[in-house]
Amino acid sequence: MTQIYQASCTAPVNIATLKYWGKRDTKLNLPTNSSISVTLSQDDLRTLTTASCSSSFEQDTLYLNGEPHPIDTPRTLACLADLRSLRAALESKDDKLPKLSTFKLRIVSENNFPTAAGLASSAAGFAALISAIAKLYELPQNSSELSMIARKGSGSACRSLFGGYVAWEMGELEDGSDSKAVEVAPVNHWPEMQALICVVCDVKKDVSSTSGMQLTVATSDLFQERIKNVVPKRFIEMKKSIVDKDFAKFAELTIKDSNSFHSCCLDSYPPIFYMNDTSKKIIKLVNLLNEAAGKIIAAYTFDAGPNAVIYYLKENENQVLGLFNKVFGHLEGWEKAESLKSKFEILEKFPIDQIESNMEFYSQGVSRVILTQVGGGPKSVDTSLLDLETGLPKKC
Amino acid sequence: MTQIYQASCTAPVNIATLKYWGKRDTKLNLPTNSSISVTLSQDDLRTLTTASCSSSFEQDTLYLNGEPHPIDTPRTLACLADLRSLRAALESKDDKLPKLSTFKLRIVSENNFPTAAGLASSAAGFAALISAIAKLYELPQNSSELSMIARKGSGSACRSLFGGYVAWEMGELEDGSDSKAVEVAPVNHWPEMQALICVVCDVKKDVSSTSGMQLTVATSDLFQERIKNVVPKRFIEMKKSIVDKDFAKFAELTIKDSNSFHSCCLDSYPPIFYMNDTSKKIIKLVNLLNEAAGKIIAAYTFDAGPNAVIYYLKENENQVLGLFNKVFGHLEGWEKAESLKSKFEILEKFPIDQIESNMEFYSQGVSRVILTQVGGGPKSVDTSLLDLETGLPKKC
Repeated sequence: MTQIYQASCTAPVNIATLKYWGKRDTKLNLPTNSSISVTLSQDDLRTLTTASCSSSFEQDTLYLNGEPHPIDTPRTLACLADLRSLRAALESKDDKLPKLSTFKLRIVSENNFPTAAGLASSAAGFAALISAIAKLYELPQNSSELSMIARKGSGSACRSLFGGYVAWEMGELEDGSDSKAVEVAPVNHWPEMQALICVVCDVKKDVSSTSGMQLTVATSDLFQERIKNVVPKRFIEMKKSIVDKDFAKFAELTIKDSNSFHSCCLDSYPPIFYMNDTSKKIIKLVNLLNEAAGKIIAAYTFDAGPNAVIYYLKENENQVLGLFNKVFGHLEGWEKAESLKSKFEILEKFPIDQIESNMEFYSQGVSRVILTQVGGGPKSVDTSLLDLETGLPKKC
Repeated sequence: MTQIYQASCTAPVNIATLKYWGKRDTKLNLPTNSSISVTLSQDDLRTLTTASCSSSFEQDTLYLNGEPHPIDTPRTLACLADLRSLRAALESKDDKLPKLSTFKLRIVSENNFPTAAGLASSAAGFAALISAIAKLYELPQNSSELSMIARKGSGSACRSLFGGYVAWEMGELEDGSDSKAVEVAPVNHWPEMQALICVVCDVKKDVSSTSGMQLTVATSDLFQERIKNVVPKRFIEMKKSIVDKDFAKFAELTIKDSNSFHSCCLDSYPPIFYMNDTSKKIIKLVNLLNEAAGKIIAAYTFDAGPNAVIYYLKENENQVLGLFNKVFGHLEGWEKAESLKSKFEILEKFPIDQIESNMEFYSQGVSRVILTQVGGGPKSVDTSLLDLETGLPKKC
């Protein structure tokens, strides 16, 4: 039987605290502004991808969560072409290397979380794809260099090439060769960062983020102010708040940037709405919590959908989770916090009567919670998703 | 019995198409930007006010919809002081005039629409108050001059001193003496303008417009762009669209300005939300309607609350009302359109299946509709709300 070469990697989800919204080049996925994100722990959210190739494979194929998936999208093809070209360069310098760049690829990928939840699965997906193929091809490129390939697949995927706190520098060059992810700080610089994700029920969104962001670029007057003045200042301030481990500042900037991004969506023509009334209830809970604490202990952020991600520090876990467990404790996702529950509390100054007397109103609209935290970047793993005997995905 | 002097006026509601949001002087109600509105017909929405005074009255009093109402708010006091001062100037020049400026006032006021509906009742209220007292005092001031007094009561009230299409020029002077309403065009210039109001059910709003707008001024980054660049350009364009009777342009600017205003609310810190999921459904219906028509035949606008006001021309009545009657036909407010219903239609290209298959979703959240149109300014009337025998409001 012909030899099958293979390699497997996992990659994380990242949730932006300074939002990417708008491309200045839609083909290369070059953004109109720099962005910042926190990489989330792969224990809770990750894509595992096995990349394989063989002279016996007849075409490039992709399996996602057990099902065949189109691989011939322009963006995926752009990533594969870049990776093959880097491999070919190695092969041209060393005759002994097998000519993997000429073989067809078989990619098998699966998430450890429901894809339909509207979490940033494409970021983890492209980061795992690029990492696994780079490992298969034994490419020497570093994470920033690989992030530029991931960026062509899905802009925000470039940030999933790093763990911890990550910046995507927008760059200036036309060919995008300076538009890449860099580490602001590793996980262990500020490991106390926790994230509570509230998965919000919603009808399917009307506007994809790909077309939504270009509608904003083309039609929003306020967006120009955002990219010219608001974000550049915030980018510097937010990096500093991370380096300084200044949660109150980090949280304020995170909240403001989520609001600013959704403002520009609403200022588009026709307007785009990603948050719904449930999202607004969660914002209200966070506001009341911070007021009761007398300082900012929780920061909400919303991507192009109604799900809330709430960042908080481990030291405020009992107060933050105490409140959200009170409201959403009946939902799936709290298993992980079982041992913490005895310490959960409601802040003395929190107007809990106001919530309790409208509990039906506040507790509806969320389908599950996910408790997680800041985590590391892509990892090389031995687990293979490929059945070497059949050359097909292993059955789950 | 001591003589009671009295005069009665009605004044209209106005709904801004270029929004007033933000004060540069909170005491004088001087705005951060100019605004434009359409005055709505008093047949459907008006305040009727009888102003009376007598040497026998012991204090200034106000009755609103049959109930005593505080009159000693700083804003109402500022209006009364201005009006008395103008009357006193007349009296000082003509000894024969009764000294009404020294008498206490008794004001009786009532709306022909539910105050609780969240419609702009304070604008009509202050405009009627100022008009009735100006009539009682036989003041020679014109509508623009009176609008500056109304402005001190409630900013947007200044626009209710005119009928038709009205601009509030923000002015530049510190004393506000150039911040006044002016006519852009009278009703009969463009009498075809219709308005459908969808009164949306909601819990009480968290943030009043008075405090909301100052939060935006103080905290929103995007707001500065709105007042410096977006609104000044739009102000000129919108006035032109009215003069030109260019509905498509007028409607586009109206929609964009509503979106822009709510964007700045969302960009405030903490964010302010006035629209809810029902508002968003109405926006979607208007968008689908305009798409189906192949041109803009309906423009939505939202003030500081979830109610939608939809402007359209008489010539498109059957298509606009046809759709909204299909969705909200079960509600109160359609009596007026009884004779039109046989001509109601759904545009051929409208995806009515999409709405019909989710009718329960689309039709909920609105409590009533109001069908109205552009209308005239304050009117002098003979109807008195005061019982001259008792000196108290007449019983309804």
